Amino acid sequence: MKFSFKNDYSEGCHPNILQALTETNFEQEAGYGEDQYSLQAKTLIKKKINSTDSEIYLVSGGTQANLIVISAILRPYQCVISSAPGHILNNETGAIEATGHKVLSIDTEDGKLRPSDIIPVLEGHGNVPHQVMPKLVYISNSTELGTVYLAEELEELSRFCRENNLYLFMDGARLGHGLTCEINDLTMEKVAELTDIFYLGGTKNGALIGEAIVINNKDLQQDFAFNIKQKGALLAKGRLLGIQFMELMKDDLYFDLAQHANVQAMKIKHALKERGVQFLSDTYTNQIFPIINNDLIAILSEHFDFFVWKKIDEKSSAIRLITSWNTGDEPVERFIEIIKRELQ
Amino acid sequence: MKFSFKNDYSEGCHPNILQALTETNFEQEAGYGEDQYSLQAKTLIKKKINSTDSEIYLVSGGTQANLIVISAILRPYQCVISSAPGHILNNETGAIEATGHKVLSIDTEDGKLRPSDIIPVLEGHGNVPHQVMPKLVYISNSTELGTVYLAEELEELSRFCRENNLYLFMDGARLGHGLTCEINDLTMEKVAELTDIFYLGGTKNGALIGEAIVINNKDLQQDFAFNIKQKGALLAKGRLLGIQFMELMKDDLYFDLAQHANVQAMKIKHALKERGVQFLSDTYTNQIFPIINNDLIAILSEHFDFFVWKKIDEKSSAIRLITSWNTGDEPVERFIEIIKRELQ
Amino acid sequence: MKFSFKNDYSEGCHPNILQALTETNFEQEAGYGEDQYSLQAKTLIKKKINSTDSEIYLVSGGTQANLIVISAILRPYQCVISSAPGHILNNETGAIEATGHKVLSIDTEDGKLRPSDIIPVLEGHGNVPHQVMPKLVYISNSTELGTVYLAEELEELSRFCRENNLYLFMDGARLGHGLTCEINDLTMEKVAELTDIFYLGGTKNGALIGEAIVINNKDLQQDFAFNIKQKGALLAKGRLLGIQFMELMKDDLYFDLAQHANVQAMKIKHALKERGVQFLSDTYTNQIFPIINNDLIAILSEHFDFFVWKKIDEKSSAIRLITSWNTGDEPVERFIEIIKRELQ
Amino acid sequence: MKFSFKNDYSEGCHPNILQALTETNFEQEAGYGEDQYSLQAKTLIKKKINSTDSEIYLVSGGTQANLIVISAILRPYQCVISSAPGHILNNETGAIEATGHKVLSIDTEDGKLRPSDIIPVLEGHGNVPHQVMPKLVYISNSTELGTVYLAEELEELSRFCRENNLYLFMDGARLGHGLTCEINDLTMEKVAELTDIFYLGGTKNGALIGEAIVINNKDLQQDFAFNIKQKGALLAKGRLLGIQFMELMKDDLYFDLAQHANVQAMKIKHALKERGVQFLSDTYTNQIFPIINNDLIAILSEHFDFFVWKKIDEKSSAIRLITSWNTGDEPVERFIEIIKRELQ
Repeated sequence: MKFSFKNDYSEGCHPNILQALTETNFEQEAGYGEDQYSLQAKTLIKKKINSTDSEIYLVSGGTQANLIVISAILRPYQCVISSAPGHILNNETGAIEATGHKVLSIDTEDGKLRPSDIIPVLEGHGNVPHQVMPKLVYISNSTELGTVYLAEELEELSRFCRENNLYLFMDGARLGHGLTCEINDLTMEKVAELTDIFYLGGTKNGALIGEAIVINNKDLQQDFAFNIKQKGALLAKGRLLGIQFMELMKDDLYFDLAQHANVQAMKIKHALKERGVQFLSDTYTNQIFPIINNDLIAILSEHFDFFVWKKIDEKSSAIRLITSWNTGDEPVERFIEIIKRELQ
Repeated sequence: MKFSFKNDYSEGCHPNILQALTETNFEQEAGYGEDQYSLQAKTLIKKKINSTDSEIYLVSGGTQANLIVISAILRPYQCVISSAPGHILNNETGAIEATGHKVLSIDTEDGKLRPSDIIPVLEGHGNVPHQVMPKLVYISNSTELGTVYLAEELEELSRFCRENNLYLFMDGARLGHGLTCEINDLTMEKVAELTDIFYLGGTKNGALIGEAIVINNKDLQQDFAFNIKQKGALLAKGRLLGIQFMELMKDDLYFDLAQHANVQAMKIKHALKERGVQFLSDTYTNQIFPIINNDLIAILSEHFDFFVWKKIDEKSSAIRLITSWNTGDEPVERFIEIIKRELQ
Repeated sequence: MKFSFKNDYSEGCHPNILQALTETNFEQEAGYGEDQYSLQAKTLIKKKINSTDSEIYLVSGGTQANLIVISAILRPYQCVISSAPGHILNNETGAIEATGHKVLSIDTEDGKLRPSDIIPVLEGHGNVPHQVMPKLVYISNSTELGTVYLAEELEELSRFCRENNLYLFMDGARLGHGLTCEINDLTMEKVAELTDIFYLGGTKNGALIGEAIVINNKDLQQDFAFNIKQKGALLAKGRLLGIQFMELMKDDLYFDLAQHANVQAMKIKHALKERGVQFLSDTYTNQIFPIINNDLIAILSEHFDFFVWKKIDEKSSAIRLITSWNTGDEPVERFIEIIKRELQ
Repeated sequence: MKFSFKNDYSEGCHPNILQALTETNFEQEAGYGEDQYSLQAKTLIKKKINSTDSEIYLVSGGTQANLIVISAILRPYQCVISSAPGHILNNETGAIEATGHKVLSIDTEDGKLRPSDIIPVLEGHGNVPHQVMPKLVYISNSTELGTVYLAEELEELSRFCRENNLYLFMDGARLGHGLTCEINDLTMEKVAELTDIFYLGGTKNGALIGEAIVINNKDLQQDFAFNIKQKGALLAKGRLLGIQFMELMKDDLYFDLAQHANVQAMKIKHALKERGVQFLSDTYTNQIFPIINNDLIAILSEHFDFFVWKKIDEKSSAIRLITSWNTGDEPVERFIEIIKRELQ
């Protein structure tokens, strides 16, 4: 079988998790997230963000987290602002709209939203009450294009949102990758401080399932648990989520795993750059989008699975390569070898 | 810590599952349910129901299964008929209504629906178009009260539904327990034949998470996967569900586990019956509802956790005891001992 | 054609309305409720409730008013408490559930809710977060059974709701009839003081269409207009609603019309009572529910249209007679004549 | 007061309607659209489209018609394709999304959709089941920009939709204007033949309220009335809608009124064209979008109300002028006079 660079959820989970599941398996625990492991996991996350005031809920996946958060926060006539390659826009089968809310799409170069992107949206929605009311800004870090927010950028966006009475929600399906990449200058603490709500993704960083929703804005905490249950996301055996996040947060395993994925991607990136290859976006996380010619794509496809992301011209396309917490050195070296051989 | 008879999801999962998760952990698999284990699990279930025409989807939990199935099947103006202690009625935070559909509640003695219960509902909903249109009959087997449908009862209900253009949907969160109890005369094959759609519950019978939705009515199969995704239920690592159901369906482990739970409950039931104790409902599955006096409840509470289900009079209440795939002989014997000692 | 006592919306509207529509027809007015007539109508209503702090919105019909108010007020996990013959429960095709909210039904004798009816519902919904949260109490005055709330009853209910953090919403499709019946001791001012939100029904009391939603609780006023528009209820020619309520509120025409309807119904009621006829409920408004034998029903049916409301026994049924603002003396006298002749 | 060219719903209704309302006012009629006038109106419309197989429902307004039609037709995971200035996209407070459905926006020059606009959308939505499924094409005729579909264009679009299993829905809020403009070569019959469903707008063409939804595709007719009721759109006094459409359809009054509006707009258009003024779009209906300089806008604003639609450059903007069934010669001539004087 070919090695796959298609995504970061091809393998199972970090072995520590399976070991902990096995060790605790026969203990009787309270259901629905009241188990001791969920409580421990939450304590570890609160320590990491240095805030005991935030509330934390563990759910299964990213689409689930997005639809619960957004439908819980917004009033029926309020809508979401998202940058154009936002996951909620085109990859979740209209999950947000299914809860009744419009998602306004903003085209951006690099997948990141800036106040200057949002101002025209606000200005274009003043015809009260004939238009939806923009109320929540949805961003991802790292973004769908693998890019990251620098501290200054997130601070500016956060300030803008607060000044304009907008909520800031960060989809952190790949937050680990964002916070451990070489150009990052954000911390978990800073993220919690600057957003109203965010989540920490487990599924794409070493867990079997699991995203940890962190609610920092106290106004948004009230009765949140009802929404989790109503959307079918409250697991009877909440221990499954608790144990995973407990293990991931211990000794910063979560961040080590993400950094490993980033490092593997950067090895390939540097090899490509040395050969003069251009990229669709300038990324430092576990996703890279090199633009290569079709012959090379054909050759690489014989040995690896990956997505052809975007046709650039008749002769070349951008491909997407994703590495994971479990991507070993062997496939990376093999990939680089082919690159070196073919791009002399 | 006290042993808990509160529910059947206090422990982790059957060890075979953890072993299989561990053995397959580092394999790269396709995401979103396209992995080989999900496919194997589905093949095993189809074999068990002796139907290759049914379509199967694996999701995380019961509330999720219920809301996806019902919202996928019904048109906006159609509603559900449920017996009064139905899980969707009072234990799922309005999950069904949140998808836009009314749930009509029918009071029943034993938690089971019969044509004679449904006829007045149909007759009372003829004021077109001013009332919702009853379209889906929701039943559970075993029911919330631990009772089961006999073959003849399910056949009669199924025939009635087909004659009246109603869909029949069976919540099988505890289907294993229903199909292995001593008075059962149904089979998986029969269940598939008589229902339009049902699910096979893993969470309450040895899995960490997981319910297998089985769609028998071909009209209801079209495009079903979209609904799974839209409701946030399509796991990136679908292997987690696939491996669990693969293990549970192998050599009928699923049914052995359920039968074990039933047997443990029946031991307690017989001990109580011998002492002349009455029950709220006549059950043969892993839930029993003995009516005992408050002094005995106090004594039992010192050693065991369980729910006081319903006050009967000033002196006594019905309690609910639930056993699981993992309930050992020790707590059962200890419970019986106390009963024997106190009810001489 | 037979005269109809089937409902109070068989005729067009009070002639004053047609005259005003005609006189103002060619004036250019602002759209969407910003016209001068809507503003005047709102001013007149505010005067009547002696409150300038309430906000008023005019919409087309009762189901529309109900679904807008309830979906605007509640959070997704919150639900409505309604007495069993509530219009939203069984006569609106699941309109409330279609906005995502469960309606809990409470059986009552006379269609009126009392704190003692609600207490068990609150007590039965303490399993957070597994159940919906009761948040809004929906009542009608007059009720579906023609009964009315006395001042003391509404005060007690209002106090209870405030103590228990519940909103009180009065469906006033027939509020005029309630406030002008002989046993009434409420005023519009009192209704506004004791409810969080209510509406004043035009459709069943002399308008072509129209209900005036009055929001007394300031917390519920914010951004309400968005909900009106989103549900398709904001008429481009809002003048149609404005002119109607302006005319109805002038010189208390609205109350005169309702009183007229009540008086006509009471004439029939007294004639029946004199002959010893029993009633399903003891009403003083424009709906009466006499229990008469089937032979008499057959005779009356030759001359009048009305609903046979409820079978009482093999020989008799309750019928529903409704009078309107436009029910003349002639049909009433004719009806009474037959009664007198047949029930000697 | 200044004469307003802001919209086509500033005045009341055509006098025939008021007269018919007055003449029929005291008749008792069946409620909820079962009155004889609604039946007559539907018969007249069916005659006009030369089809007895279509089903017709009368509702109050355009947003209401749009949200009912779309939510009635689509399954939860299906979405709408609309051209970018579509009314449902930006002028209805997210009414469509509030029923659970995404609206995909396509930028177009002239507000009209062509197969070539839709093909890339279909191609971009093949990632089953991770994306919404495009299923309904929403168009307006005349469009929001005043442009119209020619017969050939609608035929081509209709054919494309049928080949691609898409429903075609025409918003006809201004269908009268579209079908009577000088370049039109469509007929009502043709519109019914080429669309699955459309509506005929009364509100913007001489009615007080009212849109007539015409369902041509038999598959979409089943149980449609339930949706009308559930969304709060079924008027108790359906006669109000019936009488209006009966009058409008008699002797083609509807089309005469629309043509009058078009003619008045064209007079202004020609006067502007003669003076060399450019237009934002090339329209032949009752909306024109001349691009004029800011000084002239200021002068015109002293005498008329209208919207400044779009800033073109520092010196000039496009304004929107709308005429109606009731726009007399006087304001038109006065407007032209100013133009002639100022643009010498």
